[in-house]
Amino acid sequence: MYNFRTDLASERRDIYQKANNLEQIDGIEATKEDINENIKVERVKITNENGEKAIGKPMGDYITIDIQKLKIAQEEELEKAGEILANELKTIVAKHVDSQGEILVVGLGNSYVTPDSLGPKVTNEIEVTRHIINYLPQYVEEGTRMVSAIAPGVLGTTGIETAEILKGIVDNIHPKLVIVIDALASRSIERISSTVQLSDTGIVPGAGVGNTRNEISQKTLGIPVVAIGIPTVVETAVLVNDCLDLFITKLQEEAKSNDYLNQLKQEDNYEEIKEALVPKDYNLIVTPKEIDDLIENMTQVVATGINRAM
Amino acid sequence: MYNFRTDLASERRDIYQKANNLEQIDGIEATKEDINENIKVERVKITNENGEKAIGKPMGDYITIDIQKLKIAQEEELEKAGEILANELKTIVAKHVDSQGEILVVGLGNSYVTPDSLGPKVTNEIEVTRHIINYLPQYVEEGTRMVSAIAPGVLGTTGIETAEILKGIVDNIHPKLVIVIDALASRSIERISSTVQLSDTGIVPGAGVGNTRNEISQKTLGIPVVAIGIPTVVETAVLVNDCLDLFITKLQEEAKSNDYLNQLKQEDNYEEIKEALVPKDYNLIVTPKEIDDLIENMTQVVATGINRAM
Amino acid sequence: MYNFRTDLASERRDIYQKANNLEQIDGIEATKEDINENIKVERVKITNENGEKAIGKPMGDYITIDIQKLKIAQEEELEKAGEILANELKTIVAKHVDSQGEILVVGLGNSYVTPDSLGPKVTNEIEVTRHIINYLPQYVEEGTRMVSAIAPGVLGTTGIETAEILKGIVDNIHPKLVIVIDALASRSIERISSTVQLSDTGIVPGAGVGNTRNEISQKTLGIPVVAIGIPTVVETAVLVNDCLDLFITKLQEEAKSNDYLNQLKQEDNYEEIKEALVPKDYNLIVTPKEIDDLIENMTQVVATGINRAM
Amino acid sequence: MYNFRTDLASERRDIYQKANNLEQIDGIEATKEDINENIKVERVKITNENGEKAIGKPMGDYITIDIQKLKIAQEEELEKAGEILANELKTIVAKHVDSQGEILVVGLGNSYVTPDSLGPKVTNEIEVTRHIINYLPQYVEEGTRMVSAIAPGVLGTTGIETAEILKGIVDNIHPKLVIVIDALASRSIERISSTVQLSDTGIVPGAGVGNTRNEISQKTLGIPVVAIGIPTVVETAVLVNDCLDLFITKLQEEAKSNDYLNQLKQEDNYEEIKEALVPKDYNLIVTPKEIDDLIENMTQVVATGINRAM
Repeated sequence: MYNFRTDLASERRDIYQKANNLEQIDGIEATKEDINENIKVERVKITNENGEKAIGKPMGDYITIDIQKLKIAQEEELEKAGEILANELKTIVAKHVDSQGEILVVGLGNSYVTPDSLGPKVTNEIEVTRHIINYLPQYVEEGTRMVSAIAPGVLGTTGIETAEILKGIVDNIHPKLVIVIDALASRSIERISSTVQLSDTGIVPGAGVGNTRNEISQKTLGIPVVAIGIPTVVETAVLVNDCLDLFITKLQEEAKSNDYLNQLKQEDNYEEIKEALVPKDYNLIVTPKEIDDLIENMTQVVATGINRAM
Repeated sequence: MYNFRTDLASERRDIYQKANNLEQIDGIEATKEDINENIKVERVKITNENGEKAIGKPMGDYITIDIQKLKIAQEEELEKAGEILANELKTIVAKHVDSQGEILVVGLGNSYVTPDSLGPKVTNEIEVTRHIINYLPQYVEEGTRMVSAIAPGVLGTTGIETAEILKGIVDNIHPKLVIVIDALASRSIERISSTVQLSDTGIVPGAGVGNTRNEISQKTLGIPVVAIGIPTVVETAVLVNDCLDLFITKLQEEAKSNDYLNQLKQEDNYEEIKEALVPKDYNLIVTPKEIDDLIENMTQVVATGINRAM
Repeated sequence: MYNFRTDLASERRDIYQKANNLEQIDGIEATKEDINENIKVERVKITNENGEKAIGKPMGDYITIDIQKLKIAQEEELEKAGEILANELKTIVAKHVDSQGEILVVGLGNSYVTPDSLGPKVTNEIEVTRHIINYLPQYVEEGTRMVSAIAPGVLGTTGIETAEILKGIVDNIHPKLVIVIDALASRSIERISSTVQLSDTGIVPGAGVGNTRNEISQKTLGIPVVAIGIPTVVETAVLVNDCLDLFITKLQEEAKSNDYLNQLKQEDNYEEIKEALVPKDYNLIVTPKEIDDLIENMTQVVATGINRAM
Repeated sequence: MYNFRTDLASERRDIYQKANNLEQIDGIEATKEDINENIKVERVKITNENGEKAIGKPMGDYITIDIQKLKIAQEEELEKAGEILANELKTIVAKHVDSQGEILVVGLGNSYVTPDSLGPKVTNEIEVTRHIINYLPQYVEEGTRMVSAIAPGVLGTTGIETAEILKGIVDNIHPKLVIVIDALASRSIERISSTVQLSDTGIVPGAGVGNTRNEISQKTLGIPVVAIGIPTVVETAVLVNDCLDLFITKLQEEAKSNDYLNQLKQEDNYEEIKEALVPKDYNLIVTPKEIDDLIENMTQVVATGINRAM
């Protein structure tokens, strides 16, 4: 399988189409919509196994909301973006549970590492109702949906697979659907903390590789899993690799029919670059200096989105 | 039952003895040890139901380590304090599981509220081994104990009782013992972030009240629970109440045989004071301004203690 | 002079009136206005030396804006509160400089201590224009006021009196007016991070004591100083003292003509209580657990207020 | 002048030597010393104008301390590194003032932006004595040096050139020497928060460009300025540029005598790459995910170093 190095279905589709010179991919449908000049929504639907194989993502819906200039967004625009996410989320949740089905919100990531803290921060802002409905039902309107929220931490600091932790909790408190918030990798710097991907297929790292250890999905938890993914990092080596591709393309265009360069282009230089650039023990990322503000804004958007949808 | 308004067995015993003019309490044994001029260890053992009833804590061992001047402690002293905690913890853990019995460390509290963040911060510093033993056994010495760690959050932000979350995780990953780190209330300002209480009875809020909903103990989890509690707050109303008691004592000593004041002394003025002092919707605490530094220091002590004990 | 233990002119006036059974104080004028059900504005004007002596504050205007329920305020209400502050600030600034007079905003306090970090946090949010007007004048509208901002730190961490630091900067960059943001002490818990006091008399600690070392005012800086003060702490001993006063009043009402208690009431128990309660080396405060959120909200209010006023 | 894109004299010297195929540069002397297996010290001395022009740094001493594996350093190693820095600093300070000459420590950078917060954090840890010597001389040993510290903020949030702020303070409190702590750019990822550069030439951005506006040096402040610089970032575009250079070298080695590629190599691709990679309004950096921990460690090293040297 092609190594996409992005978790966004929309980017994978573009890469696959371009690499294979296709106008369309069998098993993948896509539509775009401009909400306003700053917000765009793209809907990618993987409809069969061919689509699955092409871009290495399971069948299901993938909705990408791009918010331009989130960094400098005013209060109103954050509200607007939250509202749009709320609408999309409502629709995708309604496909799987009724309006009273209990929901567990899960914020993945490490709250002590800024670019990885978005999940836990969002969790902290969720208006949970489960305990109020259980202990103080007179304080909530009848028919209010039970919502609970947890930030289980990451394997490196817990020593436990997140899927194992969630399996235990789900089996014990019996929600009807899980919403997982996760930081994603993207190929595009513009998308850092400015794009939201919604999907109903859960989180399936290393899709198709047969390793379901880390999978957070209906298969492992037994209930539907809606994933909200936000790109927060671009790997340096990916950037440089993309840059070298552009460079070689330029060389080829000017120095035509150079076998050696043709061959180079077909190689995947990623591991080599990574080896060269990244010193042992370092975990390098490209991040905007303004990451803290961006994450504050995005936290508000996603929390508003979820709260409104509930 | 007497309302002690402290979670420290050692303080409760002092209050009970003084209030009842006792030299000793049936069912409670206690010994003190001065480790050095800055560190003192007190061991309280509750041996029967009478002891339980007297101070409202379940039978078991309660070890209090007082560290003077932790706030201004140097690196070496932090090391020393960590070592002493490690020794006590090793002993108490060894009473319940063998040296290879898997342990789950649980940090209670809210990482986003400074005086309540000690549990999650400690959790973050635990050297977890469970995932390494499972996936990369060649990187750890044979016989290494499996350790995992989690910070489950608080009811107000998760909507789920912490005991429920832990029950689910324990049933799914099967540790042999749980260590819980918790922020406690104390009556003494000197003890804020300067005292550690170790016990093997778990965490039993509202002991004896018949409400086991929040209990984190062998009864609810099915495995032994060692609790590490650190006082981080003193309630304002407790302080003022204590102060009024002192004041009335003074009045009585000087204005002898005043029935009215005698009567007052017997009343519990706490609710009244709390009502008067605490405006609605506020959750007031007395805290040293230096709480952040104190917590940094205490985090290092507790994490070192646990890591060394493992 | 009476020891008010509050920096709010409005509270001092109330205390002085009550203690002296006065309907009005010569040299002090006051009016109240309810902006809406959540926001009240009180204007205290000290008009002569008698008023100065009565409440220990220099002649000038003191405007107190009380914002109820700031803790749970929504975005709109924060906007509204910011707008009201902006209006009051505009008026008070206009008394001293014209609309183009350069302003230096100074955030007092320690950014590393939560209840003391409001000044520096506000400073960080000020829209400074001085460098843009100097280097990129084409990017700002003609007539834009020069604004700069600094957070000079506190004596304990700088070793330099704040007034000395500011004197040096003012003499070098020549603003026409200074706005100082400062954390205040109040006697009322409800006012923690919910009240703003505006005044045009600068900051004069230990007013009237003849020690002008710490004074940040026209006298020391040579230009007008507008102060924005926000109560962020109430001292525990003040609370307990107030409580004891109430208690003794109650005793007296019921056990009439008790000379001993009369005498007690006249004593200032503060130092005694402080001695008893506060262990050496600790700097105790009563603070709402939600202080971080309160400060976030208040930061937005004050920054919006200043930005709009400029 | 060659565009070095590093603030380290040591890296500039290497680049210049390599680019010009020199064994030695007239006007630059250098010696290396291995303190232990983890710590290396390099001393570069620029002795004349030729050396100045070659690497674009003013005449003076530049000492680089490289600390390997700082990220995972234990307490003892941090102590050791602090001690070495202390020794170098003592020597360089003693060249300019006597042992009682008052010193002002200045931490440049923005405390609210993690990779830029090192200066302010160090400042906060400095043991200042100026106010104690002034107000409580009985509490310090006779002959104690006056030390004060300030974190003046950055132009973007203050609107005032840092040199202007410092000029005002220096003129008002009259220290004999300034120590400036600053975050630097480096070409090498290994050096992020692991290298310290000491120099006695102050901070001269855009050296030789004739713009002394931002210069913090004896020329602008009138007293000697010792600079402590720590690389905290590497620009993405620099990385990619370096990578392309390596790549082209490889192409050339294999596809010899290719005029086109030779020409490419001579071009500076930096602006082009930056243009391509960096979207407008973003300020991209390459940073280790562990930046917070690294900075904690480095803060301790530098603060210990300064405190010991005083």
